[in-house]
Amino acid sequence: MNFEELVKSRHSAVNFLENEQMTEEDFKNIFELTKTAPSAYNLQFTNYLVITNKDKKEKVKELSYHQYKIHTASAVVIVMGNKNSIEMPEAEKIYGPLKMLKIMDEVDYETTMNMIKGYSDGLKGEQGALNLELSLNAGLHAMLFMLSAKHYGFDTCPMHVHNVDELRKEFNIPDHLEPVMMITVGKSVDKVRARGYRKPVGEFVNFNGY
Amino acid sequence: MNFEELVKSRHSAVNFLENEQMTEEDFKNIFELTKTAPSAYNLQFTNYLVITNKDKKEKVKELSYHQYKIHTASAVVIVMGNKNSIEMPEAEKIYGPLKMLKIMDEVDYETTMNMIKGYSDGLKGEQGALNLELSLNAGLHAMLFMLSAKHYGFDTCPMHVHNVDELRKEFNIPDHLEPVMMITVGKSVDKVRARGYRKPVGEFVNFNGY
Repeated sequence: MNFEELVKSRHSAVNFLENEQMTEEDFKNIFELTKTAPSAYNLQFTNYLVITNKDKKEKVKELSYHQYKIHTASAVVIVMGNKNSIEMPEAEKIYGPLKMLKIMDEVDYETTMNMIKGYSDGLKGEQGALNLELSLNAGLHAMLFMLSAKHYGFDTCPMHVHNVDELRKEFNIPDHLEPVMMITVGKSVDKVRARGYRKPVGEFVNFNGY
Repeated sequence: MNFEELVKSRHSAVNFLENEQMTEEDFKNIFELTKTAPSAYNLQFTNYLVITNKDKKEKVKELSYHQYKIHTASAVVIVMGNKNSIEMPEAEKIYGPLKMLKIMDEVDYETTMNMIKGYSDGLKGEQGALNLELSLNAGLHAMLFMLSAKHYGFDTCPMHVHNVDELRKEFNIPDHLEPVMMITVGKSVDKVRARGYRKPVGEFVNFNGY
């Protein structure tokens, strides 16, 4: 679909058609597009836990104030920031092969590693800074996920994530993955729907100062 | 352009063609698409300061470790979260007209306002929670900005924002707007470029648990 049409037809789904199934293949197609999202130093912070299993999905519903759309959605997707992404061994995994293949020379590699080290130390040194970085990067990634899902014919609804500790226990989510938001995905009951009111551009954009 | 092509052709620009100008009209077109981004309770947290003025752009460059791409970019865009968005008068501005036009009945309106009040109080009651919410929502919004810019033929590069206090002073950014990131925008020097390495889907996506 043309980008403009796709953007205009993407709405947060209010409810989903029950019994519409999504396969791992559907998700892999979506994620192949989603993974092109940019991230700071290309550290690729964002991870996903996709829950398609009906019983497990009900567990998420229970932990999410029983929101009905989790029941009817084909899947609920937990979007998480990976705290390990700013550790040097993770950065080396991304940049090491580029050095080996001589896409990056030794000097470039060392400069990049030093910049990442400084960035990483900065985030660790300031209370809350890493979580902010993970949330921002998850947002960038998740928007592309929702548009990519729409491209493949699936509707989405971004949601808050609740009761993170219980969710972590239920799905054995490792400590280094920080749940940031959830997305329900499936086929929307309403095919055409008026968009919620949006402020005019002049109310949220300023040029050259205030 | 087809969505898939557009996503695949979007790269973070390394450098921009100097003297390519962007008009306010260019930005308004981009923002008309960007504003369809979802936000929690449709509170539309994300604001933008677009700096096209050359001298003012140099000021941002000075405050951003003199990164050269700010000099050659047509504009630098500061993406900000609006802390006032969670205040009830702001919510009333968005939902009030829907009640007046009877798109929303009295009961729906009151329920929604109570939910927003609870949500707002929750964010205020937890240290750092509002900033996390603003960052996440800015990420969702900014990804759509970058894709929309590409749709209109402009390249972008997401960047960290530095020296926020000085930036605030320089541009009279009001206290309720919290700079979260920056985006340089213009025409990229390199038209075709290999994408940075991306992890395979299996490395950042899990199905049904760990």
